[in-house]
Amino acid sequence: MELQQNDRLIDELIRRRLDEILPQKIEEKLAELKASKTPSMTIIATKGTLDWAYPPFILSSTAAALGWDVSVFFTFYGLQLLRKDLAGLKVSPLGNPGMPMKMPFGPEWFRSLNWNIPNAVQSIVPGFETMATSLMKQTIRNKGVADITELRNLCVESGVNMIGCQMTVDLFGFAHDDFIPEVKEYVGAATFLPMARDADVSLFI
Amino acid sequence: MELQQNDRLIDELIRRRLDEILPQKIEEKLAELKASKTPSMTIIATKGTLDWAYPPFILSSTAAALGWDVSVFFTFYGLQLLRKDLAGLKVSPLGNPGMPMKMPFGPEWFRSLNWNIPNAVQSIVPGFETMATSLMKQTIRNKGVADITELRNLCVESGVNMIGCQMTVDLFGFAHDDFIPEVKEYVGAATFLPMARDADVSLFI
Amino acid sequence: MELQQNDRLIDELIRRRLDEILPQKIEEKLAELKASKTPSMTIIATKGTLDWAYPPFILSSTAAALGWDVSVFFTFYGLQLLRKDLAGLKVSPLGNPGMPMKMPFGPEWFRSLNWNIPNAVQSIVPGFETMATSLMKQTIRNKGVADITELRNLCVESGVNMIGCQMTVDLFGFAHDDFIPEVKEYVGAATFLPMARDADVSLFI
Repeated sequence: MELQQNDRLIDELIRRRLDEILPQKIEEKLAELKASKTPSMTIIATKGTLDWAYPPFILSSTAAALGWDVSVFFTFYGLQLLRKDLAGLKVSPLGNPGMPMKMPFGPEWFRSLNWNIPNAVQSIVPGFETMATSLMKQTIRNKGVADITELRNLCVESGVNMIGCQMTVDLFGFAHDDFIPEVKEYVGAATFLPMARDADVSLFI
Repeated sequence: MELQQNDRLIDELIRRRLDEILPQKIEEKLAELKASKTPSMTIIATKGTLDWAYPPFILSSTAAALGWDVSVFFTFYGLQLLRKDLAGLKVSPLGNPGMPMKMPFGPEWFRSLNWNIPNAVQSIVPGFETMATSLMKQTIRNKGVADITELRNLCVESGVNMIGCQMTVDLFGFAHDDFIPEVKEYVGAATFLPMARDADVSLFI
Repeated sequence: MELQQNDRLIDELIRRRLDEILPQKIEEKLAELKASKTPSMTIIATKGTLDWAYPPFILSSTAAALGWDVSVFFTFYGLQLLRKDLAGLKVSPLGNPGMPMKMPFGPEWFRSLNWNIPNAVQSIVPGFETMATSLMKQTIRNKGVADITELRNLCVESGVNMIGCQMTVDLFGFAHDDFIPEVKEYVGAATFLPMARDADVSLFI
């Protein structure tokens, strides 16, 4: 009888203490787990033009510099970004009226002009795309921004996982030898998705 | 008096035990909850071309095959991917210099050529877009990759939630009858965002 | 001796009760914590055309209306969306065969026609892009959808954090004065990524 009563008292006391203590303990534990976990990001890089090569490489190298674990899955047109020679990457102002066309040299007033060259002209002037590409490359050089090969090297050196999409390699008829040897593995979406699940941030670029 | 002292002793013991046990229990519970939770992905599909139809359908069907819960919100140009007849989907190499143009037939050396056809030529040759579209379709057939209607069927069969954006339906003047009957519901972003919040992975394609 | 034995009994009781009570309590508390946390979203807005201006502003204003914390990082071509005057935003059907070209006025049968104007024609007809832009603006007005300046105001008024990418400002030669004064700060990816890490949903648009 005495023991039973004691039991009930203890039980009650436990519940009361739990209600008091648990919220804070859980919060502490969650904060602790979060603090001890290395932040992580996965990127699905799907575009293969010079301008759209920047976002995956800039975000990856920045995250790696912050100490994050980063994995980039190069798939679809994005596979172009893994080629040994990136000189073929081009930028097209065609179909992209959001692209500012400015002169990257000359006095400030001249550089601040916005050259609105209509698509009509762009598409019938041979070499317009090549001109736009070189214009962008010059702008980037002038502004002290790393070129795309440098940025990719930075990613490799800072430990970004470069992963190729084998299905796209097959689809476009590439050979593994077309790509930089730093590509860690060639896998499919079924291997990549679980990595995205565990990441804090996942972006489709 | 004795009981009071006993109470204090018990209380102390409870606090000590809680301090000892709680952190590990919480961690175990969190791991258990994660392991028992079905992984989930939400996709916002916004593009309406043949090439960009692949990423949402490939990622969705792959995730569904892995046992994930998947919901795709077709909005903006992405609504085109829900049309009953997908034969109208086209791919445009215009404004996309990242698109590899390769011949999907013939000997290996011929197929590995990269046809760099300038936009200037592309845009004034009538039917160039149709040719590029058929070229892509042939490449996909040759490589054993499912065509887009097959992939969409696969998504439907494996339980991917197909959701249409009602605002876009109104904006572009579509009728629900234009779309496959498997569309589960037509809602707005206000309904979709809470689904994205609960998902492990959310992608804007 | 008796007391020691009592202690052991009490200790055992405490451990048993904890094992019984803890899992459910922890689960309840975690659900409670989640319910009490304000949902959050971060968006990386990278496109600078009239059509692609809609997704970041529609998703942001909708999330803010639901009470979410929202931060948008305007970078790359997306910086155009922060300009004081948005009248220059254009839409290009070039290179986007997924864009439905419909007449936003006239009888239903006329509006439901799909104008398939080949790129070949588009690119050599001067002013085609301007025509497409005005067509889209009319469609949006006709359908009662807010125009882009109204949507942006809505975002600002509902507390969406507008953040500019300083690197892009430098790269494209913009001045802070080109942008609306509601831009909260100009930072780099290193400042934005930790915000994305803490958000429930992160999208690259």
